[in-house]
Amino acid sequence: MRDGFQGDLEQLDGKLATMADAAGEAMRRATRALLTADLLLAEEVLGADDQLDELRAVCEEDAHALLALQAPVAGDLRGVLAVVYCAEKIERMGDLAAHIAGAARRRHPDHAVPAELEQVFTDLGRETAGMADRVASLVRSGGRGGYAELSRTDETVDALHARVLATITSPSWPHDQRVAVALTLVTRFYERFADQAVSVSKRLDFAATGDLPG
Amino acid sequence: MRDGFQGDLEQLDGKLATMADAAGEAMRRATRALLTADLLLAEEVLGADDQLDELRAVCEEDAHALLALQAPVAGDLRGVLAVVYCAEKIERMGDLAAHIAGAARRRHPDHAVPAELEQVFTDLGRETAGMADRVASLVRSGGRGGYAELSRTDETVDALHARVLATITSPSWPHDQRVAVALTLVTRFYERFADQAVSVSKRLDFAATGDLPG
Repeated sequence: MRDGFQGDLEQLDGKLATMADAAGEAMRRATRALLTADLLLAEEVLGADDQLDELRAVCEEDAHALLALQAPVAGDLRGVLAVVYCAEKIERMGDLAAHIAGAARRRHPDHAVPAELEQVFTDLGRETAGMADRVASLVRSGGRGGYAELSRTDETVDALHARVLATITSPSWPHDQRVAVALTLVTRFYERFADQAVSVSKRLDFAATGDLPG
Repeated sequence: MRDGFQGDLEQLDGKLATMADAAGEAMRRATRALLTADLLLAEEVLGADDQLDELRAVCEEDAHALLALQAPVAGDLRGVLAVVYCAEKIERMGDLAAHIAGAARRRHPDHAVPAELEQVFTDLGRETAGMADRVASLVRSGGRGGYAELSRTDETVDALHARVLATITSPSWPHDQRVAVALTLVTRFYERFADQAVSVSKRLDFAATGDLPG
């Protein structure tokens, strides 16, 4: 651990990485709760979301203190502001995972996801949780070049999302509107989770280089 | 216009208020395009969204410059950081209005909103555009106390959103899944637009007082 500003910024990045770890874990558990109609697990995900909200408030307070006390400029300033920006996005990732858990809870004891869509939601859960994991590792490693990589994964997520919508709007799909409406929102939560991860990676690239990627 | 830091911050707030004006106008036009299946108007809303993205980038660059050059503390620091935070939220409001315009475009020449839901979407459009207008006036007036007020309007929007979902999931609703799925996303865009406006008002209160409301 370095002293002074760099040490403080490393500590802050450590908290941000912890947030990303928690968002990935929330997404994995929310997806399991959704696919197995596990009420207890869904409740756990919903209950754990407060921790992410608190961690975000801590990140923001620490960042404000660093700005006020050390008045960083250039790359150091971008680094501190990136933490504020990314903490908000990662908190939102946690909210979206909690929304998925909420959808599982609402349908319990029924399964929210019919059998023919289990595989695509399994894939959505794996890809999006993996994006959160990658965000955590990018933060820990100083985060350069993640935007191009996460944008590719985001395309995979968008394709899975489109597949869900195509399935539930097919004239031969046997379920009722209630199931369709619930799944429309759930698949949107996955897609938005992925979008937040891409935003974070873009901001990390910017903090590292000073250039906003494409 | 005052000189020095306060003058710079007032200029920045002016740009933020302009963004909120544009988001309100985008929402009004998107709602009209949605309800009248007006393709040209929908295209205009989609085309205008770039301006909001650019204005947000300008706000952020100006804020970074202020932080780097003037190293503000306490309320001044909160004021600059609030601009960065709020500009991102208002840009998102513009994105959501553009998504509504996109939904109108996708259904054209059909109407995306069936007759029995025209009133509730009219109300959603009026309430949410009004929230953006209120954000603009809060920014211009130094923005205190808006959170309580906008939270009440947000409850109205949530109730309208719930009414849409209840209507389209009713067993007697006569339209197909495609219409239901499209409307689920559109009503969600309104609801999220309102959420962003509430976030902005909360942050303006915080910038003015140093206390995060409730």
